[in-house]
Amino acid sequence: MEYYSKQISQLIAEMSSLPGIGSKSAQRLAFHILHMPKEDVKRLSETILSARENVRFCRECFTLTDQEVCPICGDPKRDHKTIMVVEDSRDMAAYEKTKEYKGVYHVLHGAISPMQGIGPEDIRLKELIKRLEADVDEVIIATNSSLEGETTAMYISKLIKPIGIKTTRIASGVPVGGDLENTDEVTLLRALEGRTEV
Amino acid sequence: MEYYSKQISQLIAEMSSLPGIGSKSAQRLAFHILHMPKEDVKRLSETILSARENVRFCRECFTLTDQEVCPICGDPKRDHKTIMVVEDSRDMAAYEKTKEYKGVYHVLHGAISPMQGIGPEDIRLKELIKRLEADVDEVIIATNSSLEGETTAMYISKLIKPIGIKTTRIASGVPVGGDLENTDEVTLLRALEGRTEV
Repeated sequence: MEYYSKQISQLIAEMSSLPGIGSKSAQRLAFHILHMPKEDVKRLSETILSARENVRFCRECFTLTDQEVCPICGDPKRDHKTIMVVEDSRDMAAYEKTKEYKGVYHVLHGAISPMQGIGPEDIRLKELIKRLEADVDEVIIATNSSLEGETTAMYISKLIKPIGIKTTRIASGVPVGGDLENTDEVTLLRALEGRTEV
Repeated sequence: MEYYSKQISQLIAEMSSLPGIGSKSAQRLAFHILHMPKEDVKRLSETILSARENVRFCRECFTLTDQEVCPICGDPKRDHKTIMVVEDSRDMAAYEKTKEYKGVYHVLHGAISPMQGIGPEDIRLKELIKRLEADVDEVIIATNSSLEGETTAMYISKLIKPIGIKTTRIASGVPVGGDLENTDEVTLLRALEGRTEV
């Protein structure tokens, strides 16, 4: 970094601090920015600052939004009695892209991970339980199919069972379009366990 | 993008516009920024803006710098009679990392590319010729070993020859640590042509 003047080094350092950006990419991004028209850089800089300043958690589902209540929670046409629990706002967007799910969401902002020291109190679980005081028909647990996601799903299901609300977990199995040959054993076993009658 | 509120979508769009950042990476970067401490985001935003505002071309070598003259051109201990011509500031940094080159640089900011409509007048060639009016011993052409880089090297050498200044080109060959088996034919031929007595 010492090969560049101070402001350029600082810019490269800021870029390197972003996730998935290695030192080569950081340099490429920095020089791209330095070659961009000034007004574009101004807009980039302002968008970053303004998004961080104005984006907050939705009062209902805790997704990130720039309003008090996110568009989904504020939509009376959605089924507010079905809550899909996801790890983060991007997972919510992934399900929204299917255009089929009509319920609402609950964003945990993480998953339980003893390895990383993330416990149940570190994610938005209390808030989920609080929401269940209202009239809820079903909680669909859609955490990732990773170790952390499964642990979290298990924890949530145990927490909700005593309340007596129907709790479901999205299916694990062979991805649509995937072939068995390239699917790992654990997924194949899950697909077998989760088989349904045709 | 419609799955996110406006400010988040804008932030994702800005991230996507950067080179090498696809839509998934843009989302990951955007959410990372939204979860960063506010003061870190403020610093990121300000660094971007300030770098773009303050960084300019070095009066001598045209590298990007935040001073009138870059640290290398301003260093009286460097050999100002040897000029290495590179395509951009990152190539200059790459040679600086070797810690062996003691001359100065000239940054073209691009290479001649008829395919992309970039001609000799679009890069800092006039400025190079102007520098040669001073007392210069050698011009080392260190443009990339790509088609554009080679074209540019050829063009520059033809331009300088009539002036009578020694002009050299960095060697092409098998990278150190590389094995012949995995080296392409063109490089192998170049390595053969450029062989030196041992």
